[in-house]
Amino acid sequence: MRLRKVVNAEEILQENQDYVLLNPQKYKGKWRDYFNNDNPIHIEVGMGKGQFIHKMAQLHPEINFIGIEVVKSIMVRAVQKVKTKGYSNLILACIDASLLVDVFKENEVARIYLNFSDPWPKNRHEKRRLTYKSFLKIFKFILTKDGEIHFKTDNQRLFEYSIESMSQFGMSFSNISLDLHNSDFENNIMTEYEERFSKMGQKIFRLEGEFT
Amino acid sequence: MRLRKVVNAEEILQENQDYVLLNPQKYKGKWRDYFNNDNPIHIEVGMGKGQFIHKMAQLHPEINFIGIEVVKSIMVRAVQKVKTKGYSNLILACIDASLLVDVFKENEVARIYLNFSDPWPKNRHEKRRLTYKSFLKIFKFILTKDGEIHFKTDNQRLFEYSIESMSQFGMSFSNISLDLHNSDFENNIMTEYEERFSKMGQKIFRLEGEFT
Repeated sequence: MRLRKVVNAEEILQENQDYVLLNPQKYKGKWRDYFNNDNPIHIEVGMGKGQFIHKMAQLHPEINFIGIEVVKSIMVRAVQKVKTKGYSNLILACIDASLLVDVFKENEVARIYLNFSDPWPKNRHEKRRLTYKSFLKIFKFILTKDGEIHFKTDNQRLFEYSIESMSQFGMSFSNISLDLHNSDFENNIMTEYEERFSKMGQKIFRLEGEFT
Repeated sequence: MRLRKVVNAEEILQENQDYVLLNPQKYKGKWRDYFNNDNPIHIEVGMGKGQFIHKMAQLHPEINFIGIEVVKSIMVRAVQKVKTKGYSNLILACIDASLLVDVFKENEVARIYLNFSDPWPKNRHEKRRLTYKSFLKIFKFILTKDGEIHFKTDNQRLFEYSIESMSQFGMSFSNISLDLHNSDFENNIMTEYEERFSKMGQKIFRLEGEFT
């Protein structure tokens, strides 16, 4: 997602540390203490402007949500959303996905959401895709044994690639949809991007994956 | 595929045993002798009228092909095709897919083609789908260790189901295409059904699967 650069993004985030963690590493292995309960932790990696995770936090008070985004200009938008109506079961964290092993200990996360991740269409950028094996290795490590990755995208090539990459990493799938908005799947929460592109007739692809 | 019933199908097949084996079980473990060479064996399960495997046999003299179809009326059409221009590396076999373990010994087949298999859309007919686990078990048994299943269909639900079922059986995928006729995939050989339905704008889904 490309957004106009927010001037003073760093400064805005510094001022809003009640809503966004700039050094989430310090809670590694201590997220239960942070949330002050034993509820499962669901994270969204590459949260963008935050509509999805914000709505999920509202709908599921029994889950702790952590929205992760590395781009500070985008994080500012998410912070603005969370500030107007914050939920105690939601916190944002500004960090690169490749550093998630510094933020979560083994088996600390119950579910990972990947929504409309950057497709990095060029072959030479394969390693940057969030469903590339190096990221899957990180996700497998931080997920609980029956933890799941819920992935959706409108990018056909990324979806094809991801099924290949995830299956070659030993993952199995359930609830696959090749046209989410015309499927039996209920309670879909849309991202900002999804609302916009599905209105334009773009098909949305979705899967749930589990490590075996 | 639904076809008008051919009168005397049984009789026609009996008369054409140079082209179609009515008791392929007798070659179990002896297919090398049958073809009189050590070339890999590729089979198509649910071959229909035979255009795909007939063209494949023509294009790949280095492979032995066996076209399998249980419906006698349809097999008659395939026999008519093979008779006009037969290839020594192609034979047809009239048998139910559930009996393939009686036709092939362990590791005897290098590749299985599933083209536009009956989707059996009703949940209660799941067990009849060729990508249901009981069939996958048979396919795994008869396939060589690096053997592959090449599967294509225009049925979105069957494709979604098959990715789930195959991945849950421990299979991994490569060369997935969610729109085969608009993909980079080269040398696609079309079935009769595929020619007809892709002309109508129907997307074709395809994958290559391997047991791990």
